Order: sequence, then structure tokens, then C-alpha cells
Amino acid sequence: MTPRLPAIDPVRHVLLEAPLVRDRQGDSLQRQLLTRIRDAILDGRFPSGCRLPGSRDLAVDLGVSRNSVTAVYEQLGAEGYIALSRRGTKVSALDRSRARGHADPAHAAPPRLSERGTRVVSRFADAAETLAFRPGVPALARFPLSAWKSCFDRAFKASGVSALGYGNPAGEAALQGAIMRHLAVARGVRCEVGQVVITEGAQEALNLCVRLVTNPGDTAWVEDPGYRGAQTAFQCGDLKVEALRVDGAGLVVPADAWSAAPPRLIYTTPSHQYPTGGVLPVARRLALIRQAQACGAWIIEDDYDSEFRHAGELIGAMQGLVPQAPVMYVGTFSKTLFPSLRLGFVVLPQALAAAAAPLLKETLRGGHRHEQLALAEFIDSGQFSRHLGRMRRLYRGRQALLRDALAQHLAVPHAVLGGDSGMHLTVRLPPEYPDQAIAEAARAYDMAPAPLSQFALRARPEDNGLVLGYGNTSESQYPALVQRLSRLAQARRARRSA
Amino acid sequence: MTPRLPAIDPVRHVLLEAPLVRDRQGDSLQRQLLTRIRDAILDGRFPSGCRLPGSRDLAVDLGVSRNSVTAVYEQLGAEGYIALSRRGTKVSALDRSRARGHADPAHAAPPRLSERGTRVVSRFADAAETLAFRPGVPALARFPLSAWKSCFDRAFKASGVSALGYGNPAGEAALQGAIMRHLAVARGVRCEVGQVVITEGAQEALNLCVRLVTNPGDTAWVEDPGYRGAQTAFQCGDLKVEALRVDGAGLVVPADAWSAAPPRLIYTTPSHQYPTGGVLPVARRLALIRQAQACGAWIIEDDYDSEFRHAGELIGAMQGLVPQAPVMYVGTFSKTLFPSLRLGFVVLPQALAAAAAPLLKETLRGGHRHEQLALAEFIDSGQFSRHLGRMRRLYRGRQALLRDALAQHLAVPHAVLGGDSGMHLTVRLPPEYPDQAIAEAARAYDMAPAPLSQFALRARPEDNGLVLGYGNTSESQYPALVQRLSRLAQARRARRSA
Repeated sequence: MTPRLPAIDPVRHVLLEAPLVRDRQGDSLQRQLLTRIRDAILDGRFPSGCRLPGSRDLAVDLGVSRNSVTAVYEQLGAEGYIALSRRGTKVSALDRSRARGHADPAHAAPPRLSERGTRVVSRFADAAETLAFRPGVPALARFPLSAWKSCFDRAFKASGVSALGYGNPAGEAALQGAIMRHLAVARGVRCEVGQVVITEGAQEALNLCVRLVTNPGDTAWVEDPGYRGAQTAFQCGDLKVEALRVDGAGLVVPADAWSAAPPRLIYTTPSHQYPTGGVLPVARRLALIRQAQACGAWIIEDDYDSEFRHAGELIGAMQGLVPQAPVMYVGTFSKTLFPSLRLGFVVLPQALAAAAAPLLKETLRGGHRHEQLALAEFIDSGQFSRHLGRMRRLYRGRQALLRDALAQHLAVPHAVLGGDSGMHLTVRLPPEYPDQAIAEAARAYDMAPAPLSQFALRARPEDNGLVLGYGNTSESQYPALVQRLSRLAQARRARRSA
Repeated sequence: MTPRLPAIDPVRHVLLEAPLVRDRQGDSLQRQLLTRIRDAILDGRFPSGCRLPGSRDLAVDLGVSRNSVTAVYEQLGAEGYIALSRRGTKVSALDRSRARGHADPAHAAPPRLSERGTRVVSRFADAAETLAFRPGVPALARFPLSAWKSCFDRAFKASGVSALGYGNPAGEAALQGAIMRHLAVARGVRCEVGQVVITEGAQEALNLCVRLVTNPGDTAWVEDPGYRGAQTAFQCGDLKVEALRVDGAGLVVPADAWSAAPPRLIYTTPSHQYPTGGVLPVARRLALIRQAQACGAWIIEDDYDSEFRHAGELIGAMQGLVPQAPVMYVGTFSKTLFPSLRLGFVVLPQALAAAAAPLLKETLRGGHRHEQLALAEFIDSGQFSRHLGRMRRLYRGRQALLRDALAQHLAVPHAVLGGDSGMHLTVRLPPEYPDQAIAEAARAYDMAPAPLSQFALRARPEDNGLVLGYGNTSESQYPALVQRLSRLAQARRARRSA
């Protein structure tokens, strides 16, 4: 005869398996008990219908107050883990298949991004802004940090709590006004305050333009080579992206393009084509506006760095060229102040601004209001213009020295493009000097020039070269850096096919 | 014989029509001349081919230096307005039809927003956050402004210039880590640092989820009534929005829904359904996860205000319920800190985070880095938890007093929904008390309760009521405000049809 063992209650065994201890993370005994029971239910040790001990007994066994146990049971009841009734406490019926530890391999495996999630391909390696020649980064060390901080502190003190809530979706009125006044003088942009929409950098401005005037499948023209951020915004907006070539003066629209691929949206950088540096002549500007009007297209004029004009007077924006031009004028403070500020804007055509109000209200949230107010003061007090003037002189000097260094030390055939504005020069190289290989090799020497071919959607042999940002790279380094680039280029020269 | 008049040169007439004067706006004589010629060319007074006077003559006539005139001519040449040659200076051939003053009526008239631009309809009137009962606004006056400013100042001083550039697209590592640690303890969220993506509030997190896992035309389930920001994000992403009803415990998924309208994306607020306040029971949570896995859908868990749990312990997030759950966990600091901070985040499933890296890099720009570093310190130093504790007590007290005021002063039949968490109560009213009319009338008394019907995509009779945010409304006002609402409701009672 086998001896009868005392029945072991598996539920009590789990509940009492280890003492509850007060730990230093402040996890209360109550919360520990809660977690213990939740875990046992979720992993199936407490099956559906299983009865939990009475709160009085459990409190005694665990050495906690009965109130604690009652609170835990109530919580578990509220969350649906257990059902409490006069006849006791029972674990609810739960479908625990595939729960803990039974992950679906379809989700554990590389998950399925959507088509639009995979459409955007990242073409550049990451580059710290401290790397030499990285395009698009202004002279961070020359930013008037303490003057900016003073503006911020004043705005914070003056507005305090009143600027903590949601703001006007289009931005703070003070900043809209400051931008409007600045653009009128500096860029010939004609607008009312209500047309200025403050955005999270230029990128959100582009997204907004896409939402406002396009539907999925619409055609968008981009410059080729051109700014990849625009291509990305249009791809994310499910537009059909048509690449139009640029020449030395910017966007070239073939005569048949208007009928072959009628655009809904046209992206252009007329003041300083990115990255090849052309300035779009007024005849082409007027023709573009006229034909856009005729075919119901909208133009995005991205005026990303034209404040830094080095040759002659500033060139006015397309936006102000023709009244009621179908131009959405996009700008950013990432280049003129600093990138992590993330403040940009779009000036909408007047009638569009009114029609867009509901969408703005539902998709933008205002925000960063102290920063916006600080920027308004920075502009209105004249500090912004003075900073622009200083940077213009700095960049002009840097560009001249970079040209010198290229002429002297770049011992491969090349042509320097553009340079009338901005903070970069584009150096075109013959196809046998592959730009990607050179740019990759340059990383080992703390340089991040961008390969010109990576700006092209359909790269041609002439889209080979290096985009050299000189904004944040000190001029004393240019000779040594260019010598290094020259050696890297020579070492990577491909043999010509005979 | 008529006397021969001396020939008048119309070009010189325009050029000399008024003297150039130095004005106080610092517009140089050179720029004035530039503008004068540009305008005359654009408006047709200087037709194509028309010859401009020599620079020497014009300089004498205008009383400016010859260098100034030469610079203006060069600028106009660079912009394409004129052609300079040895044989003189001529206006370029420009197509000026529809230029200045000839706006296309198609663009002057209300412009054609795109379908997706018009799909989003704004349903609420603007409401200042100072209006009583406006939902979604935390107690701004109780925000520890100076403690926050100290964190910001320290971050600004410590990072200074080094945080001015573009940052990690997914956010500052310090903040990713702080959020991960906070979520592990407070919300039971399980993740690695690399899964946390910092966003511009919850709205950008929703947009990101849409981009990552959906294509246009995919089906997204939303709660009905539910959070309109999610509906907007999905509409902007060209998704087919399917409204699923909620009951007192949150989202209800009809058995046939999985086959009738298989979702790619499911939006839910399981910890505190917005706005009806239900808590989704664990059985429904597990079933939702299991079925989402089976049909390849992704769940967005929006945990917008569950830190303010008033009844019992915090309820863990769905994200941590099942390993590898197809859950994108979205949170925001708009409610826990302040809205204009515009910092939110999404915790992506591990494998998705890796696959998403290229898209993140091309569409997010980091930014607001000093703010992010300040927030990391605010969390890691324990100040965030203490602030949450204070606010939880404040809101708990406010909710109790609002319940009292409703019980005592709302003299129309009603039911108070939810309230286990957060900063709002939803008061359901019988259909004969039309919520929109009451909410509109309340504006005159500086109240902005939200009509419950406006949260519904397909409003039913029971979707009638008022969502009362008590976060930013002082408790001393409740009796008077509720009395007023009661009178407004009674006055707007519709006659029952017999």
C-alpha cells in the first residue's frame, strides 16, 4: 500500500514560492504580489477557472495586510485577470495560445515594412556634423550661443506658463510677423502674416505641401541631381517622382514634359540649385510659373541657403516675381541659425492659406513656443541680420580659400560648380574617379564629403563628384584635407576601358 | 511744318523718374536701382530687346558711382534679366504674359486643395487652453517651471555647441534610455534603447507608424468614439478608416470584423479609452494581440494619459503582455509635462526598429537636443516621477470634486463614464440634449467642453454628451460651471417626438 501524500495546492505553491521583500526600487509588496499573480496567469501556471485563496488566508501566509491582498484582487478584477464573486476568486477564461513564449515567427522574423516604408532608401552613411566637408551644416562654433540663450531666457520669463499649452497651429504670431518682415526685405517675398506657417524644419514644410495639394499617384517633378529630402517627402506621400535634369543654371524643363508627365507639384531650388549651384534665370522662372499656372501645378520654391549670397546682391525669390504665383515658398533656420532648432516655415499662396486652415489645425500642434518667441525677438532686434552678415563674410572667405586649395592641391581633372551662394562647393570629377569609393575612403580621415551621384535619381556619368560643405569646416584644414582627397581619388582611379 | 520735338528716350525716363535717395531702412542706392530696373522689365515697360544706357552715362545722371551701376548690371545679368555684351546692354527675351497683374483666375479663386487635403475636416472650434473643461490640457499652473528651466539650463551649458547640429534621428540616446527605464517600471513596457524613437509629440509617432507599416488603401481600425488625431493621421496616410464601436471596457471587435475588413493597423487606447474611459480587460487584450498576429496586423497602443491612474495600481501596457507582440507603443509628454514641449515617442517592436532605421534616418532629423537632454535629466533625477505623483493626487482630487459637482448641480439625466485614469470625465446625456449646441453655448461662458458626438465617426444616439477636461480647470469653479452647463442643457432640450 502506497502512503497517501498530503495534497499540494499548486496555486499556493506559486504564490508563496518566494517571500515578498521591500526592495530599494520602491516596488511595493502590493505591486510585487500583483506582478506575481499576473505572470502566473499569463504563462498558464494558473489556468482558467483556477481558484485563488481567500484574501485573509493569503495575507497571513505572505505576512502582508489583508487590505493589500484585497487591493491586488480588485486590481486584477478590473484588468480582467480574475473574476470576484461571493463564491470565491477565479482566474478568468483567457486565450493564452501564442502568449508568453509563443511568439509568432512571422513577427519574430524580419517584419514586413510596408512598400512605402521600404521605398525610401538611405543612400548616405551616417555622418557626425563634426566630420569635415559634411554638407548642410553651418559654422556651429560661430553661433552666438549666449545671445541666443538671452533671447530664450527673456521669452521664457516673459511668457512662462502662458506658452506651455497648445499654440496656434501655424505658429506664434510674433514669429510669423518677424519672418514676414524679414522675407520682404531680404528675399522679396510678398505675403501677409496669415500665409506664414511655422514648421518643424523644412522637412515638415515639404510634407505639408504634399498633403495640401497632392493625392497619391500624382506626379511630382524634382531636380536631378537634387535635394534628397524632397524626393523622400514625395515618396512618402506616394507621389510619382519624375526626375528633371539640371544644367549650370538649374532646372531644365523639356518642352514635352508638360504633356508627357504633367506635374501636380514641382520642386525647385532656383536661388542656388542643390547641389550643383546654378541660379535659375528670370526667363526660366517666369516660364515655369506661367506653365505651372496653365496646367494647375504648384511650385515648391526651396530657398534653403540663399541668405548666404556671395556674388552681388541677393536674388529675389520666385514667390515675389508674379502676384498670385502658385508658389509655396519653403525656408528653414537650420542653415542660418542651427539645425537642432528644427524651425522652418512655408509661405502659402494667400487663397491656399485660407483653404488649408482646417488641415493645419488638425495636423499641426504649434509647440516650441518659447523657442518661437525667442526667435521672433532675435529677428526683430536685428541680431539675426547681423548674424547673417557675419556668416556671409565667413563663408565667402572660406569658399575663396577652399577654391584656392582645390586649384592648388586637387591633382585630378575636375570642375568646380556653383558657389554664388551658400556653404558648399560641388567638384565634378571624371567618371573614372568613382565618387562613392572616394567618399567612403575619406571617412577614415574624418571627412564626410557627399558623393554627387547620390543626389541623382538616375545618375549619369557627369553626376560624379564630391559635394564639399565648408560651412562647419575650418579653413586652416583645407590644404591638408584637399591633398588627402586628391590622393584618395588618385588611388581609386578606375582603369579606362580601352 | 510741325516742329521736330527732341526724341524722348522712354528707358531713361523710367530710370530717372525719381531720384534715388538713401532711406532709413538701409536700402542702398544700388538695391533701389536694381529694383527699379527689375520692376520695369517685369511689368513690360522695358520690353525684350530694349537697350539700357551705358553705365557711365547712367551713373552721371543718377549721381551714383559707376561701380554701383556696373554691379547692378552684373546682377541683372546673373539673374537673366539683361544680356551684357560689348555692343551694349539689352533686356532679355522674357515671356511676361500672365506676369505681374495678370494672375490666373484659377489660382486667384479658392484653390484646389487635394482630396487628401480636404479629407480632414476640422470638427472642433478653436479653444484657448485657458477655457474651462477643455480636454487634454494638464494643470499648466502647477508645472514646476523653474525646476524644468534649471534642467534646461544645465543641459544647455553642458552640451552647448555640441548639441546644435543634427542629432540621432531617433533622438538623444540619454532620453531614449531614460524613457526606456521609466516605461519598464511605470508601464511594464519591455524594450531595448534602440526601439525607442523620439518624435514631435504623439502625432508624429502616429504618422511614423502609418509610414512604416501601411500602404495607401490599407484598412485601419479606430475606436468609435475615439481620438480624432488618430483618425486624422490615418486619413492623411490614405488609409481606409474602419470605425469599431467601444463599450464600457473599450474596443469591441466583432467576430466577423477580421474577415470583413481585415486591418493592417489597429489603433487602441486600452489603458483608458479616449474619451469614454474604459479599461480593456486582459482577455480582450490577449485576443486582440493573437488575432493581429494571425492576420499580420499591427497594433498602435496609445498610452496617452495612463500615468494618471486614480483607481488602484497602474495597469500594465499591452506592449509588455506578450513577447514580440506586434504592438507599437505610443506615448507623449504633452499631458505629463506640457503640450508645447512637443516631445513624444514610439516604442517599435524590436525587429521593426531595425528594419525601420533607413526610413527614420531619411525622415526624422533629431533636433531639440537641449530639450531632449533636459528631459532625460528630469526623468533620471526622479523629478518626473515626483511631478507625476503630485499631478496624480491633484487630478484625483479634482475628479472627485467634479463628480460631486455633477451629482449635485447637473440637473439633467446623465451618466458619468470612465474616470479610472486621466484628466477628463465624459458625461453622457440623453439625445434630446444636443451636445454640440450645449458646447457652443458654453463658449460664451469661457468653457470648452468637447461634444462627445464629435469623437464619433458614425455617431449614434448614445454618442451624445460632454467631455469635461478637469486637468487645467481649478476645482473652485466646478459648482458654478456645472450649474451653468446644467442651465444651458435645459435651455437647449429638444422636444421629444411624440
